[in-house]
Amino acid sequence: MSSSIGRIFVVTSLGESHGPYVGVVVDGCPAGVEVDESLLERDLARRRAVGQTGATPRSEPDVPRIISGVLKGKTTGAPICMLVENVNVRSDAYSAVSDTPRPGHADYVAREKYRGLNDPRGGGRFSGRITAGFVMAGTVAREALRTIGIEVFAHTMAIGGISASVPSLQAARDAALLNELSCADSNAASRMKEAVLQAASEGDSVGGVIETIATGVPVGLGEPVFDSVESVLAHAFYSIPAVKGVEFGAGFAVAGLRGSTSNDPFIVSGDRISTAKNDAGGILGGISQGMPVVARVAIKPTASIAVEQETVRLSTLTPERIAVTGRHDACIVPRAVVVVESMMAVGLCDLALSAGVMQRVVK
Amino acid sequence: MSSSIGRIFVVTSLGESHGPYVGVVVDGCPAGVEVDESLLERDLARRRAVGQTGATPRSEPDVPRIISGVLKGKTTGAPICMLVENVNVRSDAYSAVSDTPRPGHADYVAREKYRGLNDPRGGGRFSGRITAGFVMAGTVAREALRTIGIEVFAHTMAIGGISASVPSLQAARDAALLNELSCADSNAASRMKEAVLQAASEGDSVGGVIETIATGVPVGLGEPVFDSVESVLAHAFYSIPAVKGVEFGAGFAVAGLRGSTSNDPFIVSGDRISTAKNDAGGILGGISQGMPVVARVAIKPTASIAVEQETVRLSTLTPERIAVTGRHDACIVPRAVVVVESMMAVGLCDLALSAGVMQRVVK
Amino acid sequence: MSSSIGRIFVVTSLGESHGPYVGVVVDGCPAGVEVDESLLERDLARRRAVGQTGATPRSEPDVPRIISGVLKGKTTGAPICMLVENVNVRSDAYSAVSDTPRPGHADYVAREKYRGLNDPRGGGRFSGRITAGFVMAGTVAREALRTIGIEVFAHTMAIGGISASVPSLQAARDAALLNELSCADSNAASRMKEAVLQAASEGDSVGGVIETIATGVPVGLGEPVFDSVESVLAHAFYSIPAVKGVEFGAGFAVAGLRGSTSNDPFIVSGDRISTAKNDAGGILGGISQGMPVVARVAIKPTASIAVEQETVRLSTLTPERIAVTGRHDACIVPRAVVVVESMMAVGLCDLALSAGVMQRVVK
Amino acid sequence: MSSSIGRIFVVTSLGESHGPYVGVVVDGCPAGVEVDESLLERDLARRRAVGQTGATPRSEPDVPRIISGVLKGKTTGAPICMLVENVNVRSDAYSAVSDTPRPGHADYVAREKYRGLNDPRGGGRFSGRITAGFVMAGTVAREALRTIGIEVFAHTMAIGGISASVPSLQAARDAALLNELSCADSNAASRMKEAVLQAASEGDSVGGVIETIATGVPVGLGEPVFDSVESVLAHAFYSIPAVKGVEFGAGFAVAGLRGSTSNDPFIVSGDRISTAKNDAGGILGGISQGMPVVARVAIKPTASIAVEQETVRLSTLTPERIAVTGRHDACIVPRAVVVVESMMAVGLCDLALSAGVMQRVVK
Repeated sequence: MSSSIGRIFVVTSLGESHGPYVGVVVDGCPAGVEVDESLLERDLARRRAVGQTGATPRSEPDVPRIISGVLKGKTTGAPICMLVENVNVRSDAYSAVSDTPRPGHADYVAREKYRGLNDPRGGGRFSGRITAGFVMAGTVAREALRTIGIEVFAHTMAIGGISASVPSLQAARDAALLNELSCADSNAASRMKEAVLQAASEGDSVGGVIETIATGVPVGLGEPVFDSVESVLAHAFYSIPAVKGVEFGAGFAVAGLRGSTSNDPFIVSGDRISTAKNDAGGILGGISQGMPVVARVAIKPTASIAVEQETVRLSTLTPERIAVTGRHDACIVPRAVVVVESMMAVGLCDLALSAGVMQRVVK
Repeated sequence: MSSSIGRIFVVTSLGESHGPYVGVVVDGCPAGVEVDESLLERDLARRRAVGQTGATPRSEPDVPRIISGVLKGKTTGAPICMLVENVNVRSDAYSAVSDTPRPGHADYVAREKYRGLNDPRGGGRFSGRITAGFVMAGTVAREALRTIGIEVFAHTMAIGGISASVPSLQAARDAALLNELSCADSNAASRMKEAVLQAASEGDSVGGVIETIATGVPVGLGEPVFDSVESVLAHAFYSIPAVKGVEFGAGFAVAGLRGSTSNDPFIVSGDRISTAKNDAGGILGGISQGMPVVARVAIKPTASIAVEQETVRLSTLTPERIAVTGRHDACIVPRAVVVVESMMAVGLCDLALSAGVMQRVVK
Repeated sequence: MSSSIGRIFVVTSLGESHGPYVGVVVDGCPAGVEVDESLLERDLARRRAVGQTGATPRSEPDVPRIISGVLKGKTTGAPICMLVENVNVRSDAYSAVSDTPRPGHADYVAREKYRGLNDPRGGGRFSGRITAGFVMAGTVAREALRTIGIEVFAHTMAIGGISASVPSLQAARDAALLNELSCADSNAASRMKEAVLQAASEGDSVGGVIETIATGVPVGLGEPVFDSVESVLAHAFYSIPAVKGVEFGAGFAVAGLRGSTSNDPFIVSGDRISTAKNDAGGILGGISQGMPVVARVAIKPTASIAVEQETVRLSTLTPERIAVTGRHDACIVPRAVVVVESMMAVGLCDLALSAGVMQRVVK
Repeated sequence: MSSSIGRIFVVTSLGESHGPYVGVVVDGCPAGVEVDESLLERDLARRRAVGQTGATPRSEPDVPRIISGVLKGKTTGAPICMLVENVNVRSDAYSAVSDTPRPGHADYVAREKYRGLNDPRGGGRFSGRITAGFVMAGTVAREALRTIGIEVFAHTMAIGGISASVPSLQAARDAALLNELSCADSNAASRMKEAVLQAASEGDSVGGVIETIATGVPVGLGEPVFDSVESVLAHAFYSIPAVKGVEFGAGFAVAGLRGSTSNDPFIVSGDRISTAKNDAGGILGGISQGMPVVARVAIKPTASIAVEQETVRLSTLTPERIAVTGRHDACIVPRAVVVVESMMAVGLCDLALSAGVMQRVVK
């Protein structure tokens, strides 16, 4: 297990799906950042399943508790421990799983790696539940970034093969308020919703793509060659369960472009340098260049499905068929939007501190 | 700058394009791995431009020198420093660049970040030249992995919009020997070559996609949540200049799949567990599951092109047009194959040591 | 703030003296180590002031709570979060302190470093209270070490200028059971007790020396040059508030020896190599050599004293005199014994995992 | 092996006693620090044996070569690789050693840890020779510290049981220029020299104590709880072969003091806070408090002595006697002064960057 990420802004994840709490410790956060439990609660609510399309009926109240590091509504420079109690836990639904690993899940690899000593209840450490901790770290990171003028937001680009058309940066920024899918394209959102409900009705699931954007990023974040902006952010994104692809700017599309179309021409914009377009996703040579930093992550369909699948009974090494019951989302993309945004913020905070752009005390 | 990567198998990159040497230090490598200068030379030759389609006429002999850490053809457990001299260096071609940053290059961001103190000659630290060090680290890593039965190889999947059709894992493994493009599909390779030559003739450049595969990976590599196999490998891949996308297994295609098609069914294969297909790219819950680990990276077109582009004269903040002269590849994909393969090997070595799968002494 | 220590066995400290909890997260602990709350409570009791000579009347019940990472009495391989509630907190006694920093305390430097945003109540992060977390990490570490035959123990060598005469390793091991000072020399212990009571009666305090020993350490722990056994353990010891000196084996006495007396001759002991004496403290070239690892740390007298001292009123930059009231130990050495022992265990766990001597799963 | 130290200012050591080169890579150094080969040579000369009392006749010219990271006499922000060629190497004198480990040396533990694969020639990685790399890193660190007004210097406090009386900070600063022992007390220096010559004439060796001091340190360096100033510096000092004790300020003497004498009273000094004395060694709560940072390290007598000692023939497990021939210093203390000073500077650079006191670019 490696449960910490970051060189200066260090985030340590803790907790299991069916343990008493999930949580996080954020160390190295500047002193003076305004954080309180209501802010955490607001962001945790965005991750909650309640009322979302095709979402699991397991609904946690997610009441956050700040254990340390905050005094009178401001960070003190000390490690910030934040916990959320796990309530509404049903372990019985998972009991059958241990000898017949669920396809697409970590059941089998975790059992092998930890020789059966890992906590299997509800997926244990491999449950999406632990991203509640990521979100709380993200709240702190976003508030810290805000003090130096950086804003981070994410929105749904695609679900179930349906892609959104996003007219502007402003539309992307407002997507979270627009609908329960955090999709900037209302029309596409309706069709996405249908696709999710259709899959749900068939006991199946769908995946999607989330885009996350940071504006106000100054020139100079990123510590190449090994801690390029892309390296640090991709490392953070791939910590999120179900992510199978990460790209920046034009991403995989660059492979089909020519240099003359892929390069972003430099232009003068007011009294500073800008680029005429942003196929680089705001990053050149691993360093931020002043344009918005843009990343997209691919989220695989929820692995837990009611559709019957092939597996193996481990104790006898014989084929089995399994239909995963229990409460599961037919599509986790809408709930994952705030998680992706949070890991973007966490990565950027570490880069801003490394570059000396963010100070150890902010006021 | 952050020039080291890895928790246990720590690779430190050094050198600039037009400095006396480029090189690398590999620390934490097990004692007993067979490495010598001829092995390094063999791999460096794969990265060399000589004779490759659309490649720069700058041809370095790339004679590697082992400075420390190897005795009688075996690693000793001590840090391994490996250097390659920079010869055939022409700095004059770059002199015009400093005040008019090249689009798609790090010139501008590096100048801002280091306030003009960075070495600008030939791109300095931001030159593809530094990947000669990555390749030497990769040689050591591949030989270390070989001692535990892991083999790593890479091949060209696409160039200039033309995709290869790869019939088998074996074909992918043999691609490096098949043609100068390291492409398993000879037919596609011919068309790729044409596309590169066409772009070159127009003073332009093309990008592509490289796939890298590790076979023989045991169950259990990966230290979730933050050092998942994907996180560690993506971090390594994104250290390579020009990479803008990284995906594993089905990658971005998962976004359009359903759970019932995306999940890989578990099957019995001999006396062990396997999966019927490998859309997960050999990774579940961030942990290797015994199938080949498969990743793909998108390489952007070479930024240095003779086609005229818009830029800005920094001293006067006025628009300029720039045509990049000097010796540049019209497509770096063929040369980058061994670099991508090397960073895969470097990442896997660190994961194997972290998981206790590779010991501190191998014999 | 840097609140994490360790490369593989990573300990993250959290909490403040007057916050709701103090605690710790232990990540990277092997799965299968037997730990429960009663073990934690046993070790925390050793750190408690109750009934000890010259100890503060502030007596915390110190009821530990395991938040994550343990299932059915065994570690799961997941991060282990352990908390102790802060009860019996009186913040009023500290209110006068903020403008007149206490000599020997962190009041002044913390205020400057965090520009007044740090939690000053009871010393905040700089209180000895946070070592309750160190002790819980130590419990886990000691149990992990026990699985590979390593035992760690500490005892009081000196208090108030009175030194103990310790006849044998066995006597040192049993010291914790012998008296409330954990001193192997009963006679010296009586005089130490008198010295503490005398100092207490004068509103003053005394310091001392603690020795900590690890037996059963195999040859080969330590990763020179920079993670020598001494480097890793000294780093850990110097995290303990009030430590001003750390030495190994003969320590500072080596400075006055000759090579012919300082070198430990190698001898055959049964079927293995041993040394005739142990002036090296079990460490050669930064690597454990099979003999007991022996370290000593110097603990300064408690800084909080009732004796009037000179200080400065920060708001006016004028001289002041201060007598620290509140509940304070006249000597923290007896309570620090388990803390020093704990940090020794934490450091050795990390070294044992780094050396591949301890596996990721123990059974 | 763990050959890197530092979180931001990362120093990677490389090379063996009888390999082609010893060297170091310094990464994370601010851009703009003035460094050239003549500065390196000046500091390397201080480490050289030539002409020093009781020093080995092995005299390396120690011509440093900067391989990367410096352009036009200034650091560029890129990793700085610095090498010194090993010349005048005689491996024959060491051939007898491998089966009969030298007492006080790493021969035995290294052979066990690396199962005979380590480079045994001249002690390999465990030779004092590798500290030539430490010294070059120290040169860079000292020049970087100078840009923020911090000066670091070291001097000999004791040799062979003879202690120096040092009248003032200024005397300590000038010691390196005063005599070949870098001892501020000329009278003591004469007697130390006699002690060394006497030991040398008997084929024996002596140890000593080195004090190192940093002036101009601002309030606020140190990242407690785990990266206190003491933790970071002790970690660095204990990387130096032969160090067995490290203390700060009054050090082990605090154990015998009372709080009323050990605490340093705060006083007003001009328009800032100071302390009336400096028993804390400039560090409170792990954070620098504005006074000089003062540390002392104990150096054991050279382990290689001509006096016959007991050892074991490993191949037969039978007792042997060994007299170490070859060229060895009877006292390494004078040569180690610049090494201790260098590791102090390296540690302080990392702390200054972590605290945000030193910027990423200095001018």
